[in-house]
Formats: sequence, C-alpha cells, structure tokens
Amino acid sequence: MNEFELIRRLTRSLPGNASVVVGPGDDCAVLDVGLPDRLLLFKTDAVVEGVHFAPEAAPEKIGHKALARCLSDIAAMAGTPSAALVTLALPGAFDPARVEAIYSGMNELARRYGVAIVGGETTTNPGGILISVALLGFVQRGKGILRSGAEPGDAIFVSGELGGSLAGKHLEFEPRLAEAQWLAQHFAVHAMIDVSDGLAGDLRHILASSRVGAELNAPSIPISREARRAAKAGAAAKPALLAALTDGEDFELLFTLASRDAVPLLDSWRKAFPKVPLTCIGKIKEGEGVTIRDKQGVRPLNADGYVHFS
Amino acid sequence: MNEFELIRRLTRSLPGNASVVVGPGDDCAVLDVGLPDRLLLFKTDAVVEGVHFAPEAAPEKIGHKALARCLSDIAAMAGTPSAALVTLALPGAFDPARVEAIYSGMNELARRYGVAIVGGETTTNPGGILISVALLGFVQRGKGILRSGAEPGDAIFVSGELGGSLAGKHLEFEPRLAEAQWLAQHFAVHAMIDVSDGLAGDLRHILASSRVGAELNAPSIPISREARRAAKAGAAAKPALLAALTDGEDFELLFTLASRDAVPLLDSWRKAFPKVPLTCIGKIKEGEGVTIRDKQGVRPLNADGYVHFS
Repeated sequence: MNEFELIRRLTRSLPGNASVVVGPGDDCAVLDVGLPDRLLLFKTDAVVEGVHFAPEAAPEKIGHKALARCLSDIAAMAGTPSAALVTLALPGAFDPARVEAIYSGMNELARRYGVAIVGGETTTNPGGILISVALLGFVQRGKGILRSGAEPGDAIFVSGELGGSLAGKHLEFEPRLAEAQWLAQHFAVHAMIDVSDGLAGDLRHILASSRVGAELNAPSIPISREARRAAKAGAAAKPALLAALTDGEDFELLFTLASRDAVPLLDSWRKAFPKVPLTCIGKIKEGEGVTIRDKQGVRPLNADGYVHFS
Repeated sequence: MNEFELIRRLTRSLPGNASVVVGPGDDCAVLDVGLPDRLLLFKTDAVVEGVHFAPEAAPEKIGHKALARCLSDIAAMAGTPSAALVTLALPGAFDPARVEAIYSGMNELARRYGVAIVGGETTTNPGGILISVALLGFVQRGKGILRSGAEPGDAIFVSGELGGSLAGKHLEFEPRLAEAQWLAQHFAVHAMIDVSDGLAGDLRHILASSRVGAELNAPSIPISREARRAAKAGAAAKPALLAALTDGEDFELLFTLASRDAVPLLDSWRKAFPKVPLTCIGKIKEGEGVTIRDKQGVRPLNADGYVHFS
C-alpha cells in the first residue's frame, strides 16, 4: 500500500463538525469559525532529516524550508498566513547552536510575512531532526481558491521555472504569497495548487478534484536552468522536460482560469511581477488524464507522471 | 543545555503580531482573530515511539493518547476543542492495519468531544512512529484561565489521583474538558495547568508565571492506587508520595482560587462530578519556591522536583 492509498483509507471515516468548509484533500483545511468576512485556513507540514533535507544542509535553510512549505500551501488557497506553532523533534545528542540557526532561518521568513510564532515544543526523535510546522491563515470569504474548480476550456498557467529544485531552490524558495493574493484580487482563478509533488502529479490533483482532463503543450513548459544543466551533465540524468514534469519541490503556483482571461492575465502579471515568469502550459479538457503535445503529436502522460519518450 | 534552557533561548526572539494574546509559555497559544465573543486556542503536541509509548502498546491507545494530550491542554485553559490536523511520521516499513488502528483510537476520542479531524499528512521517519497533533479550540473572552493568575492566599486544588500513570493511565486518560469548563463557568479560578510533567514540576510552572510560592500539605496529596502498589513492590520503586509529586503524565487539572471559594467549590464539585476526586493540597504564598509540610515539619522541595526524604 503506498502513501496515497493509505491516506484514502484513513480519510474515509474522519470525524467532522459544523465548522468544516474543506476537510482533507486540498492544500489547507478551511474552517468557518464565525468571522463575518473571513474563513480560517489550517495546515501542518513536516520536514525530516535525510528525506526533505540532507544532514549537511545549512540549518538556517532547513528552518526556512520548514516554514516556507506551509506558507506555500496558504498561498495555494490565496490566503494570508497569521500564526505558527513549531514542533522540533531532535535526536538525543543535538547541537544547540544548530537548533538556534534553524529557528533563525524560520524567524526571518516569518517576520517577512507578518507571521507570529506562538510556541510549539521540543521533543526527542531517535532517528534524526524532524520539524513539523502548524500554520493558521485567513482568506476573504469568496476569494479562496480550491483545487476543485477547473473547467473544460480553462487555460493552465504555472509561475516560475520547473525542475532541478534539489540543486538548491528547495531550501531557498520564496513562497508565492504575494502573487497568489494578487491573482485572487484581480482574476477569477478557477483552481490552484502549489507544485510540491511535481507538475504532472500536482496537475493530476487538480484534475481529480475537478473531474476534468488536461492537455499540456511540451514546448511551453518552463524548464529551469538547473534541470537543463543536469540533463546535459550525462546520460544518467533525466531529460530536462521530464525533470520539469516530475522533479517536485518547485513550490510554484499552478492554476487555471477561463481562456478569455489568459491574455489580460499575462499583460497584468508582467507589470506586477516583472521578475517572475508566468507561462500558459496547456488547457483543461473534458474527460480525465493528461496528454502532452509536442512536434511528434499528442501522447498520454502515464500514471506515475513519467512520459514515455520514444 | 537541557530542554527548558533551550526553549528559553529559542523563545526570546520569536516574531509576533497583533493577533497574539498569549504566545509561548502557557498550555496553549491564545489568538484574537476578531471574533466578538471568543478567542482562538492553538496547540501542538507530539508523541514518539520509545519515548511516549512503547512499541508494543495497543495502537488504538497510542492514537487516543496523541489527541488526548492536546485536549488536556485545551482543558487547562478552560477551552472547547474544535478541529485537529494529524501528522503521522512512519518508519519505511509500517503496518497499514496498525496505522488504521491508531486513527481509530484518535477518531473515537475526537467524536466524543465534537472535534473535526480536517487532514494532516503522512511522512517518513526512519527512527519510529511519531504522531504530532495540531489542535484548535475556543474560549469565551474573559473565561480563559492562564498559568499566571495565582495569588498569595489562594488554595491549590488538584483533580483525580496522582502517580503511577505509566502503569496504564497515560494511554487511557480522559481529558478533563468537562470539569475545566464547569470550573470556568462557576468559579473564579485564578490559574490552571494540566499535570503532564508531574505535580511538583507543573506547580512550579504556575508559580514562575504568577511570581509566587507555594506550600503543599503532604498528607493531602491524592496518591493513586498504582503509585502505592509500586511503592510496596520493592525498595527500588519510589516512595508513593514522591511518585505522586514527580511521575508526570497524570493529565489532571491543577489550579488555584481564592481560599474563601474552597469550601463552596468542594461542595459543588462533589455534586457535579461525584466520581472524580478533588483535593485541596496546599496554598499559594508570597515569595518563590515550594515547601512541603508533613508530621516532621516544613521542608523545601528541591529544584528538580524531588523531596529529600530523611
């Protein structure tokens, strides 16, 4: 049984209550706590030594990443982050200076977005460092963006460039909070997610939630310099397009809106965020699954996100 | 550097914002999110295999404990729990049936208190199972109870019986939510905490936050049957009183109120909760530190919570 099957079984029978607007299965849980103008967003995310960061990673960057991942999920709902609790699970022998440096990276990012760190705990974890961040945020009623609103005919957009994140970006990325809030204010975005599992995988999350399919245009997909460099480095590396589709940890915004909004969006975005690329990479279709179009024609992306290259 | 010193260093420079009513250092963080009648409570707590439960513990009880510890912290502020996120960090080789049983224990407890489980995540943790629960709750404005309100002359009360929790109670305890909410509605409780580190340690948290001292009356301290049994079992075991003072994981309510309220409280409590003992165990004094009175006189409790028995 893989992670997704286990989660499906576990989430079948979870207890709910009247405050739940969106439960498991989107970037954040959404709760109606009785505020007239806003809904509450609630998210946790954990990073584990040896899984999400190498033991030799700079501790400030580990702290940055632990909080930035949660902020990216708030961004994916077009929300504003508010307060965080930090659980720091440490092996018996830990270096206090290293722990303080982890907090220093986290605090700096929190200050930049007005996020209060209101406590948490330290506990023992024999296997290595684990940092779990619980984050609260808010979204204006009517302005939140779920994964489930994509419609046939929508244009699919992605911010930034994809692939090769492990070369460094995964520890340093800036969550796309400003861009997401701007999008929600200025355009009728139908569905949004942050790219954490990889473009192919996260697009599938939107498609499954929205019960639609998609066609990607291969030449349009924005491939990062790192993914191109790694592809050139040798036969063992992935082709650059495959890296952009499947590497994951890009933490870019992937979203859809009506195709008539595509050109106005590109114009306005360029003025608002001149340093951040925004690319239309395909369209939403009736049906299910993902196809990809290139010079050779249209082929399916297979189930685990990998393209069959001929 | 021990855990408390590390926390002191880490919490010195945490970022805040205008929503923070109570940050690190109480049972829960307290946030003012703009609700006219209520404040938000925010708490995380983690349990780790080999630290908070034995690998052979029944999985339903592990799930129960993971959530019950957080609920106990909401109780300590006289709050009402609302929604939880669950982070389940698992070693590479895990048994799905065991994971489902952990959830089953958690879900049953959540349903009993109307708590929605709105998501979370599973991740890899090489060292063993770690479960972190993030919990939201609410408290009526003006009805929340902090650690910092104890006053000289207050009577000190504790619910239940103390010591020997590791014999089984630590996996099965019922959080004292009903009792705490009743207390906040009917009496002017000055300070409250749940007993997780042990009576002596948690009383010190109240005293430090309130800048007062305390005198305990040794014969009054309610000692559990398990602590008495363990003490009788042999010379290696702790004396029963020492177990009640220091064992921890009792998850009872420890609180103070004006001494004039002590007798009315005992009368009303007996009617409201006939099966739950409530005991006056001492009084708050000017100054600092804890002394304990018994037939031989008054002696200090030393810094690590242990009594010097002559």
